[in-house]
Amino acid sequence: MGDSLRTLCDRKYAILGTGALGGFYGAKLQQAGCDVHFLLRSDYEHVSKSGLFIESKDGDFILPQVNAYNDVEQMPQCDVVIVALKTTQNYLLPKLLPPLVKDSGVVLVLQNGLGVEEEIFQIVRNVQVIGGLCFLCSNKVEAGHIRHLDYGKITLGEYTLEYDPAPITGRIQDIANDFQAAGIPIELATDLLLARWQKLVWNIPYNGLSVILNARTDELMRDPSTRILVEQLMREVAAGARSSGRVIPDSFIQTMLNYTVKMKPYRTSMKIDYDQGRPLEVEAIFGNPLRKAQAAGINLPQINCMYHQLKFLNQRNCIA
Amino acid sequence: MGDSLRTLCDRKYAILGTGALGGFYGAKLQQAGCDVHFLLRSDYEHVSKSGLFIESKDGDFILPQVNAYNDVEQMPQCDVVIVALKTTQNYLLPKLLPPLVKDSGVVLVLQNGLGVEEEIFQIVRNVQVIGGLCFLCSNKVEAGHIRHLDYGKITLGEYTLEYDPAPITGRIQDIANDFQAAGIPIELATDLLLARWQKLVWNIPYNGLSVILNARTDELMRDPSTRILVEQLMREVAAGARSSGRVIPDSFIQTMLNYTVKMKPYRTSMKIDYDQGRPLEVEAIFGNPLRKAQAAGINLPQINCMYHQLKFLNQRNCIA
Repeated sequence: MGDSLRTLCDRKYAILGTGALGGFYGAKLQQAGCDVHFLLRSDYEHVSKSGLFIESKDGDFILPQVNAYNDVEQMPQCDVVIVALKTTQNYLLPKLLPPLVKDSGVVLVLQNGLGVEEEIFQIVRNVQVIGGLCFLCSNKVEAGHIRHLDYGKITLGEYTLEYDPAPITGRIQDIANDFQAAGIPIELATDLLLARWQKLVWNIPYNGLSVILNARTDELMRDPSTRILVEQLMREVAAGARSSGRVIPDSFIQTMLNYTVKMKPYRTSMKIDYDQGRPLEVEAIFGNPLRKAQAAGINLPQINCMYHQLKFLNQRNCIA
Repeated sequence: MGDSLRTLCDRKYAILGTGALGGFYGAKLQQAGCDVHFLLRSDYEHVSKSGLFIESKDGDFILPQVNAYNDVEQMPQCDVVIVALKTTQNYLLPKLLPPLVKDSGVVLVLQNGLGVEEEIFQIVRNVQVIGGLCFLCSNKVEAGHIRHLDYGKITLGEYTLEYDPAPITGRIQDIANDFQAAGIPIELATDLLLARWQKLVWNIPYNGLSVILNARTDELMRDPSTRILVEQLMREVAAGARSSGRVIPDSFIQTMLNYTVKMKPYRTSMKIDYDQGRPLEVEAIFGNPLRKAQAAGINLPQINCMYHQLKFLNQRNCIA
C-alpha cells in the first residue's frame, strides 16, 4: 500500500459510523491514498486529536491525522458515502444522508440483514445504492483503537428496483478497485438479494441462538439438538430465499455447516452486542426476512419463534 | 377431614416419589384415613423417623408417623399405585411397578406431558392405568417438609387403548371419592387425551419460554413479542390436538391467556427444576406431543424450535 497506489483513488469517501467496521475500512482506504471523511460521535474528541490506530493481523498501522467530524453539516459532499452504522441507528439516516452525498453519488451500505438498501433508496432517490456484505471480524478496543482479528472480504452488489439482478457497472468496479488497492478483498455479485439471503443462512441461526442460548458457535455445533436446529433454520432461510425467487442449494447449507464446525470457537456479533447492552439488529436480520417471505405468502415459523424471543431479550437487555 | 371419613377409604395406596406433589397428596390421603405407603430415596431416613409436615394454605398438619420405604421390595402390594416421580425418572418404573401393584389394581399417573399412560401400560398390562392432571402449586422446602402454596385439583381420566374416550367407571369413581374425602378437588374426564392436550396449551408456552428466556409468567404476558408468541404456541398445541382428533376451541386459548394475565407472577415448575439443576421434563412435555403430531403428519415448528433449545439448555444445565 505505498505511494504508487495513491493516484488510483480519485473519489471522496464519507464514513458514517467510525466503529469496528467503518473505522477499519475507512482507515484502510485512507492509508491507500483515498480522501476519507469520518463521522464520529462519542470518539470524536479523541480521534480528531490522535487519529486512528489499526491493530491488524495483516499488520498494524497508525493514521495520526484523519478528517474527523461530529456534525454532518461540516462534512464535504462525497462521491461515496459508506453507511457503517448498526441498522438500529438507521432512524438517523434521513438527516445524515441527503446533505452528504453528491448528486449521482453512491451510498454503499455495509450493514447486516435484508432490505436496508430499499430503505435507503427511499431517502436518497438521486443516487445509486450499493449493498456490501462484510465478512469481517474486528472490535473497537477503545476510542480510536480498532483490532482487526480476521477476514475482511466484502461482497458488493448494485441495488436495483425490486432487487432485480444487475450486471456489474463501471461505477461499482471503480469502488471495487479502490478497496482492492487498499488491500480489501472484493467479490462482485450480480444478484444482491441472493447474496443477502445467503449471508442470512449463517447469521440467522448463529446470531440468534448465540444470544438466546448464551452459546458460542462451537457449543451450538457440538450439541446434537442445536446442531439439528441450526440446519433446520438454514433450510427455513432457504425457503425464504425461494419466496424471493432465489435458490440456495442444499450444498450451500452443508458448506456453511462444515465451515462453522472448523471455525475457532466464535462469539457472534449479535452476542457481543447483547453482552455489551447494545440494541440488537433484530429487525434487519430477523424481522425484514420474515416480512419479505410473509408478503410472498410464506411462513418461516422457527425463525418467527426466535424473532419474538430476541425482541423480548433485546427489550429487557436495553432497559436494564 | 375427621374420623367420620376414615371408613370410606378401603384401598391401599402406594406413593412413588414423595416430593412436593406425591408427598402432598399422599399425606392428605393418609390424614383422611387411607392406608398409604411412601417410597422415598434421599429423604427416607428423615421421614421414617419424623414423618411428614404439610404447610398448607388450607391449614398445616403433621403426620408424625408414615409408612416409609426406601426399597420397593419391602412394600405391600397396593390397590392404587400413584406415580408421582418426574417423568425424567420413568426409566425406574419397570423395576418399581410390577412387584408393587396388585393384579387388577390401578396405576394412577400424576405426571406432566403426553403419552405417559401408554408407556406405563407397556410395563404393567394386568392393571388399569388412570391418568391424573394436577393443578397444584407446591414445593418441598426440606426433607419431610412440603409447602402447599395454591390450587390442588386433579383431573382424572381412564387410559384406554389408543386413548379412545371412555365412560366413567366405578373404579375411577372410587378413587375420586377417596381424594375428595381427603379434601382434594377432583374432576372426571371421559377423554383423557383431550385433557392432556388442554393442559399442554398452558405448559408448552409458559414452561418452555420461562426457561429459555429466564422469565416469569407476568413478564411473558407484559411484553408484546412474547405475548404474541405465547398465543401462537397455544395455537400450535391446538393443531397438535387436532392431529389426534381433539378440538381445542379458540375460546379455550383466550381463557388460558386471560387466566395467566390475572395470575400472580409465577415461576413455572420447569423453571424451578432448571434453577435447581434438575433434569427438565422435555420429552414428556415437548418431545412426545411433537412425535405424536408428526406420526399424524403434522409439524409443530415453533414447538420444535423450543424443544431443541430446551434440550441444549437441559444438557448444559445437568453437566454443570
